[in-house]
Amino acid sequence: MRSLPCDCLHQLVGNDIAVKPLAPGEFRRQGRMVVDFLANYYENIEKYPVLSQVEPGYLSKRLPSSAPQDEEPMEAILDDVRQHIVPGLTHWQSPNFFAYFQTNTSTAAILGEMLCAGFNVAGFNWVSSPAATELESLVMDWLGKMLELPTPFLFSGNGGGVIEGNTTEAIICTLTAARDRVLRRLGHNSIAKLVVYGSDQTHCSFQKAARVAGIDPQNFRALKTTRSTLFGLSPDTLRKAIRLDIDAGLIPLYLCTTVGTTSSAAVDPLAPLCEVANEFGMWVHVDAAYAGASCICPEYRKFINGFADSFSFNAHKWFLTPLDCCCLWVKDPNALVKSLSTAPEYLKNEATESKQVVDYADWQLSLSRRFRALKLWLVIRSYGVQNLRSHIRNHCRLAKLFEELVEEDCRFEVVFPRYFALVCFRMCPSVVAGMSNGHIVENGHGEAWKLNKVNRFNAQLLRNINASGQVFMSHTMVEGVYVIRFAVGATLVSERHVIMAWKVAQEHANSLLSMPASE
Amino acid sequence: MRSLPCDCLHQLVGNDIAVKPLAPGEFRRQGRMVVDFLANYYENIEKYPVLSQVEPGYLSKRLPSSAPQDEEPMEAILDDVRQHIVPGLTHWQSPNFFAYFQTNTSTAAILGEMLCAGFNVAGFNWVSSPAATELESLVMDWLGKMLELPTPFLFSGNGGGVIEGNTTEAIICTLTAARDRVLRRLGHNSIAKLVVYGSDQTHCSFQKAARVAGIDPQNFRALKTTRSTLFGLSPDTLRKAIRLDIDAGLIPLYLCTTVGTTSSAAVDPLAPLCEVANEFGMWVHVDAAYAGASCICPEYRKFINGFADSFSFNAHKWFLTPLDCCCLWVKDPNALVKSLSTAPEYLKNEATESKQVVDYADWQLSLSRRFRALKLWLVIRSYGVQNLRSHIRNHCRLAKLFEELVEEDCRFEVVFPRYFALVCFRMCPSVVAGMSNGHIVENGHGEAWKLNKVNRFNAQLLRNINASGQVFMSHTMVEGVYVIRFAVGATLVSERHVIMAWKVAQEHANSLLSMPASE
Repeated sequence: MRSLPCDCLHQLVGNDIAVKPLAPGEFRRQGRMVVDFLANYYENIEKYPVLSQVEPGYLSKRLPSSAPQDEEPMEAILDDVRQHIVPGLTHWQSPNFFAYFQTNTSTAAILGEMLCAGFNVAGFNWVSSPAATELESLVMDWLGKMLELPTPFLFSGNGGGVIEGNTTEAIICTLTAARDRVLRRLGHNSIAKLVVYGSDQTHCSFQKAARVAGIDPQNFRALKTTRSTLFGLSPDTLRKAIRLDIDAGLIPLYLCTTVGTTSSAAVDPLAPLCEVANEFGMWVHVDAAYAGASCICPEYRKFINGFADSFSFNAHKWFLTPLDCCCLWVKDPNALVKSLSTAPEYLKNEATESKQVVDYADWQLSLSRRFRALKLWLVIRSYGVQNLRSHIRNHCRLAKLFEELVEEDCRFEVVFPRYFALVCFRMCPSVVAGMSNGHIVENGHGEAWKLNKVNRFNAQLLRNINASGQVFMSHTMVEGVYVIRFAVGATLVSERHVIMAWKVAQEHANSLLSMPASE
Repeated sequence: MRSLPCDCLHQLVGNDIAVKPLAPGEFRRQGRMVVDFLANYYENIEKYPVLSQVEPGYLSKRLPSSAPQDEEPMEAILDDVRQHIVPGLTHWQSPNFFAYFQTNTSTAAILGEMLCAGFNVAGFNWVSSPAATELESLVMDWLGKMLELPTPFLFSGNGGGVIEGNTTEAIICTLTAARDRVLRRLGHNSIAKLVVYGSDQTHCSFQKAARVAGIDPQNFRALKTTRSTLFGLSPDTLRKAIRLDIDAGLIPLYLCTTVGTTSSAAVDPLAPLCEVANEFGMWVHVDAAYAGASCICPEYRKFINGFADSFSFNAHKWFLTPLDCCCLWVKDPNALVKSLSTAPEYLKNEATESKQVVDYADWQLSLSRRFRALKLWLVIRSYGVQNLRSHIRNHCRLAKLFEELVEEDCRFEVVFPRYFALVCFRMCPSVVAGMSNGHIVENGHGEAWKLNKVNRFNAQLLRNINASGQVFMSHTMVEGVYVIRFAVGATLVSERHVIMAWKVAQEHANSLLSMPASE
């Protein structure tokens, strides 16, 4: 029999035995254990390989295949977290994490999550917890003002903001609203004629959202972008595509623009795109999932000029707030409510009937919702606008530093201009193409062969860098060119981590270049 | 200038000032503050009015309308939580909360949320954090075995489980998979012919999910249930509806059955319904959002016999796990993946290509996902199967106690038979109908008038009970009958709370009965 912690245990209730899973004494004791666990984790985070080194199936070999019949002490469980879970983590909070886009966290936000789980209110409508609704509206107006969103996006301007779980959900909700606005007029059969537009750089969430919302996959337009517009969507391309669709009897519905694409942090030119879309009565959404956070700094604000119907950014990326926290503002909340409200008898209440309150369930997919506004409010108050701006600027400065390091080494090139804190780089074609047993290969092979060779070299370089466990970067492919993505954004990152990451990249490039070419 | 906590502050980085939002010392200090804050909250939770007493708009009068420019100390923020947020909460964790269905929490689960927010990994695919994926698969198999789900729902049987945010999401995902399975065969234009089925007791999430997935609102069947089947959906009714739709040239697609409806915790007869649906090649989903948790007890397991394609229950209702945690199992994960997968270049990796791993982003709507398996794993280990069963049985026992108290007072009636821990009761029509200035009203008014009077009386009774702040119950309407719902499920509830709640109900009934009738 194992030993058991003090007051969470047996209490006779009738003839039955019950655990006491919220006993305050045990809550205090175990809560402190986990606070210390996490503090130790942050103190030691640089010791772990950033990219987990485990093999598929590792965990089922280490943990039992069935649930325990009896209670186990938290000490034993935390030991298992330490021994079996931590080695299987890819450490997103490591200062050496430069992959994808970061999802950074902070003390204030973790405290917000603790309060959220502790109160555990299901704020689907106002009455189910007025503070959850009102704090969310308040903090979304705060944030809207920090971003200098036009007044029609704020509650004070008859629009409003809501915290969704993620961008896919934000797009599904707004797309459904836009879709139903048209279908109410034309009848449901027209659903097969609706067309949605993005660019070939738009995040894959948009395609998924469109598919879920019943848009014919053949009516999904991923319009081609080119280097000439720095991979932003050209308004002319959009207009031509719309015209073609209208000529074919289809109905242009929704445009998803992006500020800070996932591949290269490219920016669609919002103002002219909105003009085109407005001409055709389309709904325009601005997906600023990654780069939106930067727009609290006046110098980045220009990127979101000119948007139209809805705007979202993920506070869970670059705003010191852990998953999940996607901030969505709309000009016409009523469009959401018309599509997403349900009014079952079991939720009817006077506050809702008075129409003086917001019922956020009608702004999102699910009924129940977490009190996510708490963490966002704690982050903004605990750090303040000025420090949040410094946080963004510091990451951009570190990205610039990395960019300069790349540029100083003439074997490498920065592939795209940098707006924010993402650097896309690769080993130069001239260096790789020349790598055949020390002899320059000039002829006998076409451009495609060369590009393929260069891409494979850079892919191998990235694999070697990541296999070291010292840093974690990721990749993308744009116009057939394989690039390594270096995204600065971890809460704990500082200059020395960026310099070290560059040294790791150089060392692996050196070894790879000194090896005989593989073919 | 305000005073500032010790090590979260200014550090010179280049020429810039940066906060240190994850400094371990400050994390420890502030983390303990919040642990104590919550422990105190639980110690005092019975002192708060269960249903918040604030007026719409209360919070904007108390908090600034713009974000602070500078950092604020956590002490000040927590003071504001205490003074301005707590009064606006409806206290779902109060032992006097008996409304809706509970969403109960526990120490283990809150610790799980802390670890989740602390690690803050975005486990969209295996490689982005192997432990997040593998622990989720493992714990979903644990739970599947606890529920004695048939092997085809477990990973070991080529099915599998996933944690979604909520039931709406679970339904949207499975409905999209079912829809696309048909549309791949018949072409996208057939979307307007697809029909989905539930009962008039099915949760409103189903209607919303169907609308989102592009099902024509005219093709949504809420089939009538009656008292004769205890508000379970009759297989004959289903078959007739399907036949009518097929005769009209429509295509039966999806049946959403319910185990434990929101109004009265009614149970659809799964086995015969599945037989009918299977005959027509439909996808059958079992929504056991509330009652599913009880099926870990052998005596409740019978209610989920006979299910077909997918099964979900909300651990965030009755399983000591805070929002959000909807457990979904499917027999054919590949159907989900075909509809929901995206494979952008920036996510390509060897593990995915090896097909040896699960990439959960392909089983859900969003790309990013929280490490929710941690809290579920901590709950199951920290309490063990036996105590979790006791937790369920204890609530059912307390509901039975309440039911007996209602039955002992001949002025009241229990309106529906009770399967789980929900009691639906009301003041008897004979008592209310007789209440006209002390004289029996026998003639001159029809049944509808009487029913309306009885309903209004019970609605007033509930308003008075809830306005007391002592307890919080909710209501529903079934076949035109207004009933008060008393759902036992708070983690902290015990016998004395149930007895007190009944006394409150009786007292308010006494005062209401002693008042002159209002018309």
